Amino acid sequence: MSQYDNPNVEVQGRASYLVTEGLENQSDVRQNTDGSRRYERYILDRVVDFLGRPAIRFELWDGFGVNGQEGVTLVGTVRIKTRDAFNKLLSDVHVGLGDEYSAGRIVVDGDLVDVLTETFAHLDQQSGRFGWIQKVFRRKRKMNTIAGSKQNIFHHYDLNNDFYALWLDREMQYTCAYFADDHFSLEDAQLAKMDHICRKLQLKPGDRVAEAGSGWGGLARHMALYYSVHVTSFNISQEQVSFSRERAAREGYSDRVDYVEDDYRTLTGEYDAFVSVGMLEHVGQEGFNELGRVINRCLTPNGRGLIHSIGRNRPANMNAWIEKRIFPGAYPPALSEMMDIFQPNSLSIADVENLRLHYARTLEHWLHRFEKSVDTVESMFDPVFVRLWRLYLSGSIAAFLSGNLQLFQVLFNRERDNSVAWTRDHIYPKN
Amino acid sequence: MSQYDNPNVEVQGRASYLVTEGLENQSDVRQNTDGSRRYERYILDRVVDFLGRPAIRFELWDGFGVNGQEGVTLVGTVRIKTRDAFNKLLSDVHVGLGDEYSAGRIVVDGDLVDVLTETFAHLDQQSGRFGWIQKVFRRKRKMNTIAGSKQNIFHHYDLNNDFYALWLDREMQYTCAYFADDHFSLEDAQLAKMDHICRKLQLKPGDRVAEAGSGWGGLARHMALYYSVHVTSFNISQEQVSFSRERAAREGYSDRVDYVEDDYRTLTGEYDAFVSVGMLEHVGQEGFNELGRVINRCLTPNGRGLIHSIGRNRPANMNAWIEKRIFPGAYPPALSEMMDIFQPNSLSIADVENLRLHYARTLEHWLHRFEKSVDTVESMFDPVFVRLWRLYLSGSIAAFLSGNLQLFQVLFNRERDNSVAWTRDHIYPKN
Repeated sequence: MSQYDNPNVEVQGRASYLVTEGLENQSDVRQNTDGSRRYERYILDRVVDFLGRPAIRFELWDGFGVNGQEGVTLVGTVRIKTRDAFNKLLSDVHVGLGDEYSAGRIVVDGDLVDVLTETFAHLDQQSGRFGWIQKVFRRKRKMNTIAGSKQNIFHHYDLNNDFYALWLDREMQYTCAYFADDHFSLEDAQLAKMDHICRKLQLKPGDRVAEAGSGWGGLARHMALYYSVHVTSFNISQEQVSFSRERAAREGYSDRVDYVEDDYRTLTGEYDAFVSVGMLEHVGQEGFNELGRVINRCLTPNGRGLIHSIGRNRPANMNAWIEKRIFPGAYPPALSEMMDIFQPNSLSIADVENLRLHYARTLEHWLHRFEKSVDTVESMFDPVFVRLWRLYLSGSIAAFLSGNLQLFQVLFNRERDNSVAWTRDHIYPKN
Repeated sequence: MSQYDNPNVEVQGRASYLVTEGLENQSDVRQNTDGSRRYERYILDRVVDFLGRPAIRFELWDGFGVNGQEGVTLVGTVRIKTRDAFNKLLSDVHVGLGDEYSAGRIVVDGDLVDVLTETFAHLDQQSGRFGWIQKVFRRKRKMNTIAGSKQNIFHHYDLNNDFYALWLDREMQYTCAYFADDHFSLEDAQLAKMDHICRKLQLKPGDRVAEAGSGWGGLARHMALYYSVHVTSFNISQEQVSFSRERAAREGYSDRVDYVEDDYRTLTGEYDAFVSVGMLEHVGQEGFNELGRVINRCLTPNGRGLIHSIGRNRPANMNAWIEKRIFPGAYPPALSEMMDIFQPNSLSIADVENLRLHYARTLEHWLHRFEKSVDTVESMFDPVFVRLWRLYLSGSIAAFLSGNLQLFQVLFNRERDNSVAWTRDHIYPKN
């Protein structure tokens, strides 16, 4: 299964700067010559306190610093290089940190992932204590309408196929891999992820599969080629659909996969399996019941479904910076929220698996590959984009390592279906 | 693993009639000599309509009948033998059906399980249509206080150890078995269930295990003997605790299992694993957060937990007759409701498995064994009890077969724990 083409992408993508719009470049960074004032030093200490006093040193532009903990080895130092950056951090900690780091006005000495993991681990204890505040002030999210979804998805996934090809695996899987064996490479683990899903869905030759969100078409391709099924795969990212179709034509499986450039909500017909990998995060909870209705409308009486999604241990806001700069409209749901897909639509949960640590490792591979290609990325975009993407990947590793984010695979079927598998032995073949 | 003692129970139990209190015996059945009236015939047709017109014939005492469907093979006939039974059915369909069947004033021609499964399958479609009514009129349940729980559990589990020994397996497992292989006997499947749980929990020799709800002590015994762990097992049923302790003393593992006659909420100490099988149904949703707090208080940083419970695909009332006659205070929760245990208490879901069909088969074994010992049961109790228990077991089979009830095994751990298993391979050994 490792006879794959050269990963070089033939589609010409626009080198889009969308995600860095409004962010200034490092050239604007001027060291503030004023020393920090007494009240600023006091406020810094309060901020470190608010962060739960992680084992990190925080320094202002004049070298004044506060250690989150004393008498322990510090994980690293966060240096706030200008008064302006400090003020932005104070007005919105998440967006301020992200934007000022991207702009180069906040820098981190030490391993970025370690510093972020330490921060997240302490922050989350806070959200436990102040959970009720979060509940009251939960941001009102905008409904992901069909038009709005298209705009949100365009923002991220149409960025540039060449860029993603630099650091994703050959199958361009931009979702959590499955490290079935500890020694697996990223390539192995992405193939194992697809097989894991196909086994859970018990695909049989000739099955009709509906996919919501195809990415660059890798799972549909894998299902068609190795499980002899027919896949109808929905995606609203034009660049990804073009990419997927060209590859299918070139490799000769266009008759077995329809890559449809449309919203999954327009899905019609009847399918033996429904699959969605890494799409639910972009639906938003207010769309869950409708997603369940679409599935209920299209699944055969004995059909199986699988949703693979980033999730949470409890409802919480998306990190504001990630939502603003990386994934507009995204929301990783708690399992209790995810149940809105199934409970009102006569669907029954068969199996839930949490692959949190697999996503941390997947992201570690991505970050490593990204850093190896960092000069190419900088020539495609600019240094601000490089730092922004580095923070996004590192922060995501930290979120999965600290248990802030989860990865759930949820397998389901119709509640009347007594043809369901009795055990999960078929997922774990003996040979 | 099949070297087990004679299952005969030495403990002398009271032959309690608690569950049939207030039910009259069949001797009270008098055929109503009046013919059915026009409005009664009309109402019967409305009732059959309300039931979703299952493929069942419903007959009044004078032989007047309504077929739920025409032109299909009917599954059976429900005969309402007196006007009084009909009136009780109308005033409360669930309690009326259960009580009048137990009293022998409603009888079923045909296979009872088939008739009930057909009824449940149609009823549930109704609850879909009228779900909003259920929401509005959801019965206000009483909180299961420690005193209240004791009374509720006494009602059912202290019935009579000898009685349960007649139709349960040798290990007296009164919970869903695991038919890992299609040819498993009930004995095999109950042992496989215990091993399945122990594997999921990754028990290591020397682990300290806390169990909430020990039943007749079988799982604690199995864990202690075959996994070399120490189990502290809570149970508020005095008869079950006496039984468990005597067996442990007789078989020489008292040093490895503490059977504690107390409420699980009094649990203290620190444990490597928490397990609860068939107890959550008796907790009630209002007690879920507290259960999670107890677990959070007692689990080591790398501890694993498993809750095995009857559940639902969506929130719904317990069948009123079952709650009145069989399990006072019981409530099988939807997964979304079950999350109240984990979400507020820093616990993370690792794995959920739905074993619905396994419970249907377990109950089929129980019903078969019960019927084989029916004369003994009747001599222990009376004919009303026999019919009541037959209806309870048959109705439970129907509920699991129709997808009305589910059986969830939920595995969880602390959300900061990165020592969790990466895959589920250990549950499915290769040899």
